[in-house]
Amino acid sequence: MEGGAGRGLECQKIMDGKVNENGNVLDKTIIPSCCLKSRASDTELDAKCHATVVSGWFSEPGSHSDKAGKRLYFNNPMWPGEAHSLEVKNILYKEKSEYQEILVFECSTYGKVLVLDGIVQLTEKDECAYQEMITHLPLCSIQSPKTVLVVGGGDGGVLREISRHSSVELIDICEIDKMVIDVSNKFFPELSIGFEDPRVQLHIGDAVEFLRHAPEGKYDAIIVDSSDPVGPAQELVERSFFEMIARALRPGGVLCNMAESMWLHTHLIHDMISICRETFKGSVHYAWTSVPTYPSGVIGFLICSTEGPPVDFIHPINPIENIEGALKHQRELRFYSSEMHAAAFALPSFLKREVPLLRDSPTPAK
Amino acid sequence: MEGGAGRGLECQKIMDGKVNENGNVLDKTIIPSCCLKSRASDTELDAKCHATVVSGWFSEPGSHSDKAGKRLYFNNPMWPGEAHSLEVKNILYKEKSEYQEILVFECSTYGKVLVLDGIVQLTEKDECAYQEMITHLPLCSIQSPKTVLVVGGGDGGVLREISRHSSVELIDICEIDKMVIDVSNKFFPELSIGFEDPRVQLHIGDAVEFLRHAPEGKYDAIIVDSSDPVGPAQELVERSFFEMIARALRPGGVLCNMAESMWLHTHLIHDMISICRETFKGSVHYAWTSVPTYPSGVIGFLICSTEGPPVDFIHPINPIENIEGALKHQRELRFYSSEMHAAAFALPSFLKREVPLLRDSPTPAK
Repeated sequence: MEGGAGRGLECQKIMDGKVNENGNVLDKTIIPSCCLKSRASDTELDAKCHATVVSGWFSEPGSHSDKAGKRLYFNNPMWPGEAHSLEVKNILYKEKSEYQEILVFECSTYGKVLVLDGIVQLTEKDECAYQEMITHLPLCSIQSPKTVLVVGGGDGGVLREISRHSSVELIDICEIDKMVIDVSNKFFPELSIGFEDPRVQLHIGDAVEFLRHAPEGKYDAIIVDSSDPVGPAQELVERSFFEMIARALRPGGVLCNMAESMWLHTHLIHDMISICRETFKGSVHYAWTSVPTYPSGVIGFLICSTEGPPVDFIHPINPIENIEGALKHQRELRFYSSEMHAAAFALPSFLKREVPLLRDSPTPAK
Repeated sequence: MEGGAGRGLECQKIMDGKVNENGNVLDKTIIPSCCLKSRASDTELDAKCHATVVSGWFSEPGSHSDKAGKRLYFNNPMWPGEAHSLEVKNILYKEKSEYQEILVFECSTYGKVLVLDGIVQLTEKDECAYQEMITHLPLCSIQSPKTVLVVGGGDGGVLREISRHSSVELIDICEIDKMVIDVSNKFFPELSIGFEDPRVQLHIGDAVEFLRHAPEGKYDAIIVDSSDPVGPAQELVERSFFEMIARALRPGGVLCNMAESMWLHTHLIHDMISICRETFKGSVHYAWTSVPTYPSGVIGFLICSTEGPPVDFIHPINPIENIEGALKHQRELRFYSSEMHAAAFALPSFLKREVPLLRDSPTPAK
């Protein structure tokens, strides 16, 4: 949930295909779908892609009816030709903030749902998988983390998870959109409870600006809990952003960054890993887990460490089970464990083939 | 893809809620969704749930337009309040067999798609995850498997994977619906190639009947590659079926059975594990993996062994990497590896909490 104009990734250079008025790719053989993200900055497409609830169902991406009453989906350039729909029991909130359109509704299977610019950010049922993994993958990989920065994460879920770590003394969070925090506070108390931790320092603003002024080597860990690299979060997958992150981390400090779907975005994953291999001189890994309401049902994490004391991400030095009170702080852990931690680094053969930089990843299980 | 009337699971006994004409559950607090499977045997609902392609999109479950032209989805009792849609480039085949409606279409992201009774069975892009895991999880867990039975699996994908195992001498397959085999042969040559292995013996018929007449202790491994326990495959989640499987396995023989989604069907998983713990005296485990086009993006596997030489499923005795030629037989492995094998047994905390029988599952990673 972060703003900025953004120059986009290097892979955009190869983009020369055409997109029709529905956002459909006309030349699918040349352009990987992940390269199409910049297309979504087109204002008309943006408007079309946004949250729609039709006949009691929410669809991602949105849909509309033509003159004959037929329903047509708008293709989202991040996952073309696919849509996921949830039956809406109640629409609880719909408002445009300064940065994005915010929708909250209740559905039967997944409970309450938070949607930003038409994209599901979290649901009550499966948020545990995302929040617990993106937080504990980095924090359990270093000994006694003390200073942590969260980029985005205005819902508070990552804060809730960080607060399980009794060693932590300072939790900075930089969220650009205050309305997200307010909405979470009203509708997602199980997430926004994270803001109640007295160690939390809230900064409303642009994370790029925040990082520019952060003291060098200030943080033990940085967690980038951003939305997809379409629209306001576009700048967060660029080389300059990763360089600022690396600068703000101490030697042997760790980054965990949301890193899309291994099934749909191998090209984007390749680019991110390539940039991070040059920027982070410690180690760079990819992990993934299951989140049913995200496209293709998975989400990946890019996990890096800066030069300094080596970090063994696969065999974490700081197991959550050994941290006093961590398993039940605020609420019980629902997804993460040391077992799930190690398993998240097991990568399918096709991913290692399509992203050659991942071939030398160490094996979690012997 | 297997037939039979079926008496349903024990959990059906607690069903006393009501379902409206759209298949929506009226009293959702009492009945777990997995218990509603028998509702789908209602003929009218069955017809409504079946494959529909509207305005160039396939939806699971199907949809229809009301008089005002609004699109309404039919709730599927296995995953209420949720729908997944794929943009259809071409409909390649649509026919009713003696047992089910068969649809094949091509979509942009996942390639060709096979649909039975309105439910996606496989797509070209992600079938590797399902076929490789359901096959190698059991076959790599025993030394030199020689005799294997496949229940269902008419597309041939599991046969293709079994054929990587050079120790195997006989592959029996019992598929009830010959039309599935013919359709796969025409549209999915990368799967139906499995039938070309001379070790394959095809039996067209009811698997319950087949197992009744199978010699006791004949098989080293049985793989149940069935459709969801709605309609023709209903009988395949019953105690008597598992008892027949156990009887047909040798001491220390192994079963791998498709076992639904850990996010949506914990009640059904609990029931299946409970039955199998009584039936299989060796060990009973649950594993899962990512399959984007299945509901909630995951599929589970129930993995059991009969009394006899103990089987360590978590640390397989017969790693695929050590089997000569296995990695590239017919085509390269795309998903499975020994690393993915071990990781599949890492279970989220919520699953162990909701299915107490899984709490004592051994940990794959140390």
